[in-house]
Amino acid sequence: MNPYYGLIENELKDLVFRGKPQSLYEPANYMMSLGGKRLRPVLVLMGCKLFDGDMAKALKPALAMELFHNFTLVHDDLMDKAALRRGQQTVHEKWDASTAVLSGDVMMVLSYEFLCSGQLPDLLLLIKLFNQTAIKVCEGQKLDMDFQDRENVSADEYVEMIGLKTAALLAGSLKTGALIAGAKGDEAALLYDFGYKLGISFQIQDDLLDTFGDAESFGKAIGGDIAENKKTILAIKAFDLAGPTEKELIKVLTSEVVPEKKIRQTIALYDRLGVREFAEGLRDKYYHEAIDSIEKIDSNNPVKKELIKLSSDLLNRVS
Amino acid sequence: MNPYYGLIENELKDLVFRGKPQSLYEPANYMMSLGGKRLRPVLVLMGCKLFDGDMAKALKPALAMELFHNFTLVHDDLMDKAALRRGQQTVHEKWDASTAVLSGDVMMVLSYEFLCSGQLPDLLLLIKLFNQTAIKVCEGQKLDMDFQDRENVSADEYVEMIGLKTAALLAGSLKTGALIAGAKGDEAALLYDFGYKLGISFQIQDDLLDTFGDAESFGKAIGGDIAENKKTILAIKAFDLAGPTEKELIKVLTSEVVPEKKIRQTIALYDRLGVREFAEGLRDKYYHEAIDSIEKIDSNNPVKKELIKLSSDLLNRVS
Repeated sequence: MNPYYGLIENELKDLVFRGKPQSLYEPANYMMSLGGKRLRPVLVLMGCKLFDGDMAKALKPALAMELFHNFTLVHDDLMDKAALRRGQQTVHEKWDASTAVLSGDVMMVLSYEFLCSGQLPDLLLLIKLFNQTAIKVCEGQKLDMDFQDRENVSADEYVEMIGLKTAALLAGSLKTGALIAGAKGDEAALLYDFGYKLGISFQIQDDLLDTFGDAESFGKAIGGDIAENKKTILAIKAFDLAGPTEKELIKVLTSEVVPEKKIRQTIALYDRLGVREFAEGLRDKYYHEAIDSIEKIDSNNPVKKELIKLSSDLLNRVS
Repeated sequence: MNPYYGLIENELKDLVFRGKPQSLYEPANYMMSLGGKRLRPVLVLMGCKLFDGDMAKALKPALAMELFHNFTLVHDDLMDKAALRRGQQTVHEKWDASTAVLSGDVMMVLSYEFLCSGQLPDLLLLIKLFNQTAIKVCEGQKLDMDFQDRENVSADEYVEMIGLKTAALLAGSLKTGALIAGAKGDEAALLYDFGYKLGISFQIQDDLLDTFGDAESFGKAIGGDIAENKKTILAIKAFDLAGPTEKELIKVLTSEVVPEKKIRQTIALYDRLGVREFAEGLRDKYYHEAIDSIEKIDSNNPVKKELIKLSSDLLNRVS
């Protein structure tokens, strides 16, 4: 087990919000108990250790990132009308929409409270980074929703969107750790860049797994994105590469009601258009750029290798 | 015109969020342009000036409070399914529910950004106060929603709820100003207490105006709370004082579909039970406690009298 993950889980074990009304805090406790990779807080700790910082000081800010991430999940699930999260009921399903709005809101506030609860010298710097990260996440989510209503989205626009929605928080987590350790500005910037590129690569891999993953190891049904007409990099590139006849087929498939048929035929079209190869190429391009950035950091600290290993694991994951 | 209000409006004139996507920021600009009393930012400035602080340093934190307040309005209107806000369409009506969730979210983050944008020495203190205030507002709103589903709510519970939902932000705004001015802890605490009690008094007056106000000066139809079965202090006290027959009548009126009849008969019942006098008494009690608190502040600064005048105006307002 990743030792940083163990540290985070150990902190989370004791994290139970007992405020009142319970109806506000219970969904927060529920979300935090659903598990997950705890990638963002792990990255805070690793970013801190990479620059020889005191990881104890980074624990609360690390939890802030996990809380913030979970706040976004609660609101995103509500907006996406998702029924399940990590195989369990989403907050708005288990309780109701208002509870999802308000519990999400209080989780966001609590993430600021956690960020402030360390005895940190450069608090203003940290909070400004956190604000900018949070703003990016909101912008990315809004772009994502706007894309769903548009016929034509370019691959560049998609990369910008996932940069804001997903990569900024991974990059921000790493940089938070670096700032806590007192890293120099340009080194912290390289680590941020690593996280940003890795995040884009990671999200493209998510899209690939949803369509081309192995059902058993993926842990959920393949083709969910296709069934929901989600604008993934695959769907976007397919529409971009499609000729007039294929565009017609895409439109027909979009309203196809039998999921199995819809998924099978869409994947066949993807194969024909070569969008899988395109997405894999884009994923690998960002992955290599990420590695280039971290390699430039002038450090012999073993955490550098650990971060590269983590990146490679994330890109080779099957779920 | 209140000179503090003028300062705030002057700042707001230049406040236009130009971030992208526009679909995220346009609702924020729309909300901020709808006007209102700007009570919270005015209180920040007054709290600062009361302790001879530099109001220029308090302007951005004052805007933070107004932004935060407007974030709560966007999310509250969504949860309450309200169609109108200050006579204009609410955000979820003008756009959609997802836009209301996300624009509200980004407004909350922006309020932290504004709070941080002054060059303030005790930033940690300010942010912790802001966090605690924001947490209280979420708790109060959840309690309010929970109360709507409960038959029996006590007047004490109601006062606790409005303390969290409304009074905490007024009190927090005043204390923010006081902290920026470098007020001593006990003086800042007295000002907070003044704001808290004033806020409770203010909210009770809101309830009274909605039912017993003069339609013309109130600016909207009288009896909206009754029509919507809202658990106001009047409804709560009426149920508390009602005998078995009157409780039956309340139940019948709750499902009455003709608004005019519902409102007329409910007001008649309120008159019979004396709930107006009870609410006025409670409002005046908190008002006097508020004045007692501010009187204890050892200052000859004229702002003290201005705050007392503002309180009295708020309690004697007709809309």
